[in-house]
Amino acid sequence: MRYELYYWPTIQGRGEFVRLALEQGGADYVDVARKPGGMAAMNRFLEDGDATHPPLAPPFLVSGKHVIAQTANILQFLGPRLGLAPKGESARLWVHQVQLTVTDFVAEAHDAHHPVGVGLYYEQQKREAKRRARQFRAERMPKYLGYFERIIDANKGGVAGRAVSYADLSLFQVVAGLRFAFPRAMRSLEPRLPKLVELHDRVATQPRLAQYLASSRRIPFNESGIFRNYPELDGAIRRA
Amino acid sequence: MRYELYYWPTIQGRGEFVRLALEQGGADYVDVARKPGGMAAMNRFLEDGDATHPPLAPPFLVSGKHVIAQTANILQFLGPRLGLAPKGESARLWVHQVQLTVTDFVAEAHDAHHPVGVGLYYEQQKREAKRRARQFRAERMPKYLGYFERIIDANKGGVAGRAVSYADLSLFQVVAGLRFAFPRAMRSLEPRLPKLVELHDRVATQPRLAQYLASSRRIPFNESGIFRNYPELDGAIRRA
Repeated sequence: MRYELYYWPTIQGRGEFVRLALEQGGADYVDVARKPGGMAAMNRFLEDGDATHPPLAPPFLVSGKHVIAQTANILQFLGPRLGLAPKGESARLWVHQVQLTVTDFVAEAHDAHHPVGVGLYYEQQKREAKRRARQFRAERMPKYLGYFERIIDANKGGVAGRAVSYADLSLFQVVAGLRFAFPRAMRSLEPRLPKLVELHDRVATQPRLAQYLASSRRIPFNESGIFRNYPELDGAIRRA
Repeated sequence: MRYELYYWPTIQGRGEFVRLALEQGGADYVDVARKPGGMAAMNRFLEDGDATHPPLAPPFLVSGKHVIAQTANILQFLGPRLGLAPKGESARLWVHQVQLTVTDFVAEAHDAHHPVGVGLYYEQQKREAKRRARQFRAERMPKYLGYFERIIDANKGGVAGRAVSYADLSLFQVVAGLRFAFPRAMRSLEPRLPKLVELHDRVATQPRLAQYLASSRRIPFNESGIFRNYPELDGAIRRA
């Protein structure tokens, strides 16, 4: 079974959470929009007026007859198939719950540089972004990251124990992204997040993932994605 | 099996999407925080340092040994149990996908009045809110609502056909909330959304739901929830 991932070809973005799962799971997949003609193929799905289950936006995954959108939904589908989800309903609900909390946090990280709207450039909302980023650093980063620290601590070093789940991969990506976008904030916060940092490092050194991260398949962070390094939005976080 | 819903007692908010499912599904449930001592019970769950699966925030649902947070996750759990989800993996992935798209849209509707941060009052971010609300009305409402219109049209009048799913209930709530918060925008947009309006009306007249909506269990919309009527944020939408 070859999976087809459809996502913007020049950014990590939300698609990266799916790429990490496909890579760690050793899946046979193609990152369609990065191939010749792939963008046109992606647009055909998005603009198909006859589709009963059209995606609103990338990323979406095609697997046989399934066309599945929404990052957390894709991961919930892939998890058990790629050995990245625990067994049992209660544990699966939990991992999905954490993934949805990551989704919320990622949207907030994005809006730190786009508080007025995605239809405007960053430069058109820089003043508002400075104000929102200050709130994001002071209130939201400690809240979410502190919560992730707490649940990793309560679950033996991962979201659902030591076995790597798709939500663990997403937490790795959150740490990597925030280190890129908010290096000063993260330097001041990380001493309070030993379990989260340990999980990040453990994920990064999984053999398949380490290979992926060192490859050209891993698109570098840049100022078009969710996590953007705008120094004027960064700053150290004082201890509450 | 009695379900326990934990959510803020004075607003519809995100909890309302769960209340609608419990009501339409004829579930035996208690809205814990609206009972004497209920807020303290809710806080005990949120502050339990020993919990392995703690919610970050309300709403959360307790069902036997499950403690489930994140609105869409709760609905995915309840759907099959309350007859509010279709059969088959493909259809269930689809309904969840739509629910997650509703989640995104609801977060944007909230941020129209809180673009800088939840830690500040509306009055402290009114200028930014006016700018964001203009973008929300001009770009985001037509985009999301147009998408919902399209999928209802492609699926025989509902998210997954005529049988009422939890995502249909959520779309009802989206229309109701937007009519409260943005009456002028909705008046100008609704002529383009006949299928969505028809779905709203069909849901509102389901016997159990009609009874709920007329009862004191339905908290009125107010200026503490997600959908708030601030006339300065409203305005007609010109046809694109």
